[in-house]
Amino acid sequence: MIRQTALDDLTTLLGQRATRSKSELDQHGRSETHFPLMPPEMVVYPETTAEVSAILRLCAAHGIPVVGYGAGTSLEGQAQSPHGGVCVDFRLMNRVLQINAADMDVVVQPGLTREALNEALRATGLFFPVDPGANASLGGMASTRASGTTAVRYGTMRDNVLGLEVVLADGRIIRTGTRARKTAAGYDLTALFVGAEGTLGLITEMTLRLHGQPEATAAAICGFADMTDAVAAVIDTIQLGLPMARIEFIDAASVAAVNAWSGTDIPLQPHLMVEFHGSDAGVREQVETFGEIVADHGGTGFDWATRPEDRRALWAMRHNAYYAIKASRPGAMAIVTDICVPISRLADAVKQTQADIDASGIAGPILGHVGDGNFHAILLYDQAEPAQEETAKALSHRMVTRALEMGGTATGEHGIGLGKLDYMQAEHGQAWDVMQTLKMALDPANIMNPGKMLRQDT
Amino acid sequence: MIRQTALDDLTTLLGQRATRSKSELDQHGRSETHFPLMPPEMVVYPETTAEVSAILRLCAAHGIPVVGYGAGTSLEGQAQSPHGGVCVDFRLMNRVLQINAADMDVVVQPGLTREALNEALRATGLFFPVDPGANASLGGMASTRASGTTAVRYGTMRDNVLGLEVVLADGRIIRTGTRARKTAAGYDLTALFVGAEGTLGLITEMTLRLHGQPEATAAAICGFADMTDAVAAVIDTIQLGLPMARIEFIDAASVAAVNAWSGTDIPLQPHLMVEFHGSDAGVREQVETFGEIVADHGGTGFDWATRPEDRRALWAMRHNAYYAIKASRPGAMAIVTDICVPISRLADAVKQTQADIDASGIAGPILGHVGDGNFHAILLYDQAEPAQEETAKALSHRMVTRALEMGGTATGEHGIGLGKLDYMQAEHGQAWDVMQTLKMALDPANIMNPGKMLRQDT
Repeated sequence: MIRQTALDDLTTLLGQRATRSKSELDQHGRSETHFPLMPPEMVVYPETTAEVSAILRLCAAHGIPVVGYGAGTSLEGQAQSPHGGVCVDFRLMNRVLQINAADMDVVVQPGLTREALNEALRATGLFFPVDPGANASLGGMASTRASGTTAVRYGTMRDNVLGLEVVLADGRIIRTGTRARKTAAGYDLTALFVGAEGTLGLITEMTLRLHGQPEATAAAICGFADMTDAVAAVIDTIQLGLPMARIEFIDAASVAAVNAWSGTDIPLQPHLMVEFHGSDAGVREQVETFGEIVADHGGTGFDWATRPEDRRALWAMRHNAYYAIKASRPGAMAIVTDICVPISRLADAVKQTQADIDASGIAGPILGHVGDGNFHAILLYDQAEPAQEETAKALSHRMVTRALEMGGTATGEHGIGLGKLDYMQAEHGQAWDVMQTLKMALDPANIMNPGKMLRQDT
Repeated sequence: MIRQTALDDLTTLLGQRATRSKSELDQHGRSETHFPLMPPEMVVYPETTAEVSAILRLCAAHGIPVVGYGAGTSLEGQAQSPHGGVCVDFRLMNRVLQINAADMDVVVQPGLTREALNEALRATGLFFPVDPGANASLGGMASTRASGTTAVRYGTMRDNVLGLEVVLADGRIIRTGTRARKTAAGYDLTALFVGAEGTLGLITEMTLRLHGQPEATAAAICGFADMTDAVAAVIDTIQLGLPMARIEFIDAASVAAVNAWSGTDIPLQPHLMVEFHGSDAGVREQVETFGEIVADHGGTGFDWATRPEDRRALWAMRHNAYYAIKASRPGAMAIVTDICVPISRLADAVKQTQADIDASGIAGPILGHVGDGNFHAILLYDQAEPAQEETAKALSHRMVTRALEMGGTATGEHGIGLGKLDYMQAEHGQAWDVMQTLKMALDPANIMNPGKMLRQDT
């Protein structure tokens, strides 16, 4: 009853921007991957930080769970509502508030998507580099510590968020960081909220680092006889210190799916897709050096795309690979794994994963951001076949276990959410208890995205 | 009495590696800057993480303050012991534990200095770039989130610490981060402990990111008629996206002190000192572009040092600037300010600071890491003249206030310690309360470096 009163109060506060329509609840209870429907009890669309604060004060007073929602592209169920409650959808808080071209930073609201930001920056000569593939919201990207194809050069959200405005569980509004490029003043609260998946507060404003659009860009795709040759080329490239802007691996199975989806005819073998940014002369030099490395490892079909439209086509193909792979098995469900290992273990990790998948009988194309040691297998299974689902889960489990044994992590960029919760103890040991302590200190009633990242019994 | 018993127990535990000798207490109670002597009651020299844990369990049981100590080069009194207690000196924990050349990382103990690390790395083709000038310990550098001349290219300690082993206030030992290059698994505890100045725990092991030694390096110094011309050249350089490895400003007063100290005859005007890293062709191109920018702003005396010994002399001169400036007024005390502002406000910040100093009657040479918007005035005063000390403090206060008004920070790299405590409320507002909450959660008895960074009444 108290809960009902609180939800009525939210309706009074927000009018039509608070809804309990089944279709909207269901839409916000779904995920891009394999988790079942977990709808909230209400979806709200705040327009201001003050409204977010009012929402949280109300929910705190009544112990109602609160889940932040951006573009709904997270892969580990972060935006789903396993405990019901209120889903705070930031789509109306999607403005660019300030472009500080001279300081190469921008102040935005969390509902803005990365593509909309880069559109707004087009005339400035600057861009925001973090690129997880999906057109995610920037608030969601910060909350999951997203990265993607360009992290090898420009870093992850950890490196590109300079400051935040956050509403805490009790409705207090704080600001973290400054507009200076660095600071040594106190605890790094910005880094604490980036990657916290909304379990400590809701991000309502962000100051992001921008980068200059490179004078020259060149991209290419090239094939290798074997996955180990491709990975060896990556390792040589890193060790030579070649400043790649992107270096992506896709295996033969991924290439087949991409060909079917994009109408391309790339040879069915493992490939690297790379991009270099720099001055004209710098990029020419990098291209030449990379060409030598590729040749050393028997790479073929090497061709540089310097025209913007060709590069766009290349990266659209890469970004669509997930959808292409899903489409290759109509109706199939996908578990998208996301391990990241030290570079020295990358070839072993990929090889062993591929052997496991080959032996499993299910399809699991592999692709990834190999410059960071991060790769994904997209494990496809038929929902009507429980044995296949078990196989996919067992494969995913083996991958994570292997990554941890190799000194790596259960998730390079997708985050914990519901999907990687079971690995927090193994990856962090007593450090997970410390996370629990911090969570309890800032959200004692456990209303912020409960059931994610932390122990269930908090 | 309880305290005495606890200290006796430490002596039992550590033997001669626990000392109460007055000279050692005094040595650990001093600072490089203007703070009075604040000695601990005991200095301990642990050799293992297990010993650090035992020390903390003992101190926690008896509510005894614990202060970490590296090389004693911090500038804001971080390693002093205003509440007495036990000073944990890490000089015996100074080993390189693992060099992972293929992964470009290294595992070290916190007492290792940055120069010793780079010496150990010499044959690998790799180096650790963070360079605060002083030969600080790496644990101290992490704890104060240090940076220095190379941050503009390689980042600060925030960017170069991949993982930590930390002993918490209650003696628990945790590990943060992994050896993978990125992770999205849970709260970023590494970032929480980096910059925490030992108020949340003691760092006992660190995994650090390494970088490849550049194929080519070129450094230069050039003079400008006016400070504003020099800063304008910096801003142009940043906006063109020229990847400087270092770009330092020193004013005419600093040059005079450096000339006297190093026996050089650099013209008495503002200068920039720069360094570029890259391939041979890349560095040549950068040098050429930078030369054009310098010429646009009337820069003179421009000369490139490509021989290692010339570069070393150049940077030794820069690193000795602090000592040179102190030596320019024998017996004088120094307040070393450390503000950092958005680049767009840098020229104004430096100009207004210089005008304030000129009008004050005391000496305050200015120099700094202008590529980050970070600069220092070294305010010299005669301890026997209370009015001068007041003047220096008022100048420092005006600088910080101005930095905060400009959207900057009270400290770019020296940290809070005792010296910047009074600005935490102004810089962070309610976010300071959040820091307090985190501190209380992890160190409820407030034994970890009490009196620093957080409210006195914790």
